[in-house]
Amino acid sequence: MPDTPANDAPYRLLNDVAFGRDVVVQAFTNLYGCSVGDETRIGPFVEIQRGAVIGARCKISSHTFICTGVEIEDEAFVGHGVMFINDRRPRATTDEGALQTDEDWVLEKTVIERGASLGSGAVILCGVRVGERAIVGAGAVVTSDVPPGAVVVGSPARERLLRAAVK
Amino acid sequence: MPDTPANDAPYRLLNDVAFGRDVVVQAFTNLYGCSVGDETRIGPFVEIQRGAVIGARCKISSHTFICTGVEIEDEAFVGHGVMFINDRRPRATTDEGALQTDEDWVLEKTVIERGASLGSGAVILCGVRVGERAIVGAGAVVTSDVPPGAVVVGSPARERLLRAAVK
Amino acid sequence: MPDTPANDAPYRLLNDVAFGRDVVVQAFTNLYGCSVGDETRIGPFVEIQRGAVIGARCKISSHTFICTGVEIEDEAFVGHGVMFINDRRPRATTDEGALQTDEDWVLEKTVIERGASLGSGAVILCGVRVGERAIVGAGAVVTSDVPPGAVVVGSPARERLLRAAVK
Repeated sequence: MPDTPANDAPYRLLNDVAFGRDVVVQAFTNLYGCSVGDETRIGPFVEIQRGAVIGARCKISSHTFICTGVEIEDEAFVGHGVMFINDRRPRATTDEGALQTDEDWVLEKTVIERGASLGSGAVILCGVRVGERAIVGAGAVVTSDVPPGAVVVGSPARERLLRAAVK
Repeated sequence: MPDTPANDAPYRLLNDVAFGRDVVVQAFTNLYGCSVGDETRIGPFVEIQRGAVIGARCKISSHTFICTGVEIEDEAFVGHGVMFINDRRPRATTDEGALQTDEDWVLEKTVIERGASLGSGAVILCGVRVGERAIVGAGAVVTSDVPPGAVVVGSPARERLLRAAVK
Repeated sequence: MPDTPANDAPYRLLNDVAFGRDVVVQAFTNLYGCSVGDETRIGPFVEIQRGAVIGARCKISSHTFICTGVEIEDEAFVGHGVMFINDRRPRATTDEGALQTDEDWVLEKTVIERGASLGSGAVILCGVRVGERAIVGAGAVVTSDVPPGAVVVGSPARERLLRAAVK
């Protein structure tokens, strides 16, 4: 795989990234230790951390944070300002007040399946799986698995059909 | 109109922007193909896309994303980390799995009327109009029109008076 | 106190900041007129404004905005994309349509007590106090004080135990 995107842009920090072919990465980006599949496009003000895996033909929009432990399958859409999480109980320090190390917390993985769409401003809790072609509404807070093809909205995110039925 | 802001700052990408007089644009900004009215101030980590129109004497705060199809009238306040949207059903690819082009989706316009305020962390769905002097609470998810002078909060955003009455 | 962080990184704007010892500040950051305690780590795409006080051994994650009037005590965790607020009724201009000056609004202070954790995507309204070791869930909108040790989630943020009881 090439070790650079297909385009040029200023103000990028790209360290130890495996790029597929024809990847576009905008300015003001911080990517390290991750992989990005063919033809995927990444907007400005995006950070992607070590170990994250981004598939082919995805769109990762501006202001989004993708952490270690996240796998995004092919053809997924990630909106603007989407925040992923990998630590259910984050703390700055241990109970004794020392800075946390990698041994002081448990990584929980997240999978966004093929063709799913995550709306802008969504927050995706850790340990969840968003199913194939599912849609997460803008601003939703996803706290549990989303079935394939489902549309979820709100905080916490629930299926839209259920909400309509209750009303 | 001048083609530069009134201030200097490093790490700015300003391409094809029509600036009014006395506009201030902070560092770490990505503006292209848009227009910005007199005396408006734009914070760091802001992206404003092609075709967006920003009025005079507005404040656009840090970490905010303003997309194609958004019009912000004079004297509006846009908080930090506000996300606009222009595509109700975003997908990375067509049903056949090819990257989407401009012909594969429908732009829905959004208008923020004169003097309105959008709180930090708000998400503004597409196709909505936020009325004159209306206030959108911090973290609200706006899914429909907001009447002039109304105060809306929550996800989805509702008028505060209505909420009080129901309770 | 030293006037630089302990690490090097490109694309940083650090003006008039009082750093403790062994502070780490990542790239794409905009800090001015604030203080940052020993061993605290600050991620990319973070802005910290004049007068903000950050304690020792904190973690301030990427995409977060910390404004004037915010005090974060030692050992607190601030997630990604967290937005603080210091003006309850933000407006771009005065009622007469002139740009606001410092005399046209009221600063309300916010305190995050020792060891508290603020989840990613949280919005913290102004004038609140988040108690020692409290946890604010990801995506929560905090509109009132959070007692020490409490866990709050949702919009507006409420204690999780209460929600369970009502259900």
